[in-house]
Amino acid sequence: MTLELINSNKLFGGWLKQYQHTSKTLHCDMRFSVYLPPQASTGLKLPVLYWLSGLTCTDENFMQKAGAQRLAAELGVILVAPDTSPRGETVKNDDNYDLGQGAGFYINATEAPWSDHYHMYDYIVEELPEIVESAFPASDKRAIAGHSMGGHGALMISLKNPERFCSASAFSPISNPTNCPWGHKAFTAYLGEDTSQWNTYDTSLLMQHATQHVPTLVDQGNADNFLEEQLKPETLEASAKISGYPLELRRHDDYDHSYYFIASFIEDHIKFHLRYLTQSPVNTK
Amino acid sequence: MTLELINSNKLFGGWLKQYQHTSKTLHCDMRFSVYLPPQASTGLKLPVLYWLSGLTCTDENFMQKAGAQRLAAELGVILVAPDTSPRGETVKNDDNYDLGQGAGFYINATEAPWSDHYHMYDYIVEELPEIVESAFPASDKRAIAGHSMGGHGALMISLKNPERFCSASAFSPISNPTNCPWGHKAFTAYLGEDTSQWNTYDTSLLMQHATQHVPTLVDQGNADNFLEEQLKPETLEASAKISGYPLELRRHDDYDHSYYFIASFIEDHIKFHLRYLTQSPVNTK
Repeated sequence: MTLELINSNKLFGGWLKQYQHTSKTLHCDMRFSVYLPPQASTGLKLPVLYWLSGLTCTDENFMQKAGAQRLAAELGVILVAPDTSPRGETVKNDDNYDLGQGAGFYINATEAPWSDHYHMYDYIVEELPEIVESAFPASDKRAIAGHSMGGHGALMISLKNPERFCSASAFSPISNPTNCPWGHKAFTAYLGEDTSQWNTYDTSLLMQHATQHVPTLVDQGNADNFLEEQLKPETLEASAKISGYPLELRRHDDYDHSYYFIASFIEDHIKFHLRYLTQSPVNTK
Repeated sequence: MTLELINSNKLFGGWLKQYQHTSKTLHCDMRFSVYLPPQASTGLKLPVLYWLSGLTCTDENFMQKAGAQRLAAELGVILVAPDTSPRGETVKNDDNYDLGQGAGFYINATEAPWSDHYHMYDYIVEELPEIVESAFPASDKRAIAGHSMGGHGALMISLKNPERFCSASAFSPISNPTNCPWGHKAFTAYLGEDTSQWNTYDTSLLMQHATQHVPTLVDQGNADNFLEEQLKPETLEASAKISGYPLELRRHDDYDHSYYFIASFIEDHIKFHLRYLTQSPVNTK
């Protein structure tokens, strides 16, 4: 495995580094960004928060706009932000923003031609932590968070891998992708018409039947343009009630779908994750 | 004066608002962004920090990337970020990033065709505060800060208007524009070949002869690609020494010219300004 350093910026006493590597899972070159807080140079292994971004984003948006590095530096956590899909000229794309490059939905596509590259689920669950934990002073204490499509990704991945993640959180997640236009479109393309396959990636359905529990925080703005048609946090609340899932869902008047909302509450999320990342053992019901 | 609201986002309990207006000084439509902290709804008049951005920026970069609103909300200061030049199809431009639109240099152009619109100095000193103090709960306690070209703008404007600004600060300012390629090019175009006109906008020369003193903080990264050729903070230090100017200039190993540097130290700047914005009277030698 070779990591090529693309960019490097010092901030808050640590280093933001952007790398490129050839992904064995996605069969293309991928970029990711990692923030190494000052504590990364002490020889200690640090916990890691993975951040999954939303539609149209790359590995850069979160690092530029969320203001998370200040807290990561204060609390000693590594931040890792992958790209939102496989990339490149040979990778199938679509003219719309909500399918193809920039819209991987963190699932494993089974339908041609998407199935050639679109295996973001395996990339996030397996390949990326393997890279991070071998290349950086990262422990195997992992948390996962995300926004919108990445909120769906973070919650869904934590629900399917409770032994791998200590905690999960999301801003404005697509909570019930089998039941909204963004999810219908992406899941039809990537997974085909058989909706039983869709269900295996639906956060609300997974949470409804969860037997292993990952502490989960969700923030949702009430002035979010996508709230009613695409996000449907009420389905998540209903699911958590059925399974007794440890979900804290907060609603915030006037806040919208932008990174300004994320910046306003990212401190709460990082402190939430740190509570569980520094506990041992984790994920007991 | 009519302000058209273009965008509005809630963050950190306050509101970021982007407005468009027809500028009487610049003879074109201009945008600016203002962050109103939660205290703006209490009926109190709040102090204002004006932020001047660097080459190629608009009113949006600082608001998206610096993370300043968190502190502004905590401390009760209004943030105002104007655009970096006049704009529009009828406004003279240049193919290069360092002249024309996005590169107004915060001076009043005297040379045709630039002199039709490029009066950013008057816009920042007179028109913008007039708008801000009539449209928002803003007091006449003003501070000014900026980055790179905007660092030049902030320091130069405070030096020329010590009665109007309580404090000034800059990240990576163009400290001596009469003596660097960016400054030579812009000042030649906007002011002509007579270098005595250039001197009236040169921060280092103004500071060397200053008799009224505005407390000033400057941060400079030692890994800044533009440090030696364009920024020349050593001239600023030399000038401050000559006039006994209250300049604190800090150098930071490994930090570069990016907004990541700004984000890392903006808290210090806002707290610095607040010390003087909440004093009365100000600007005594």
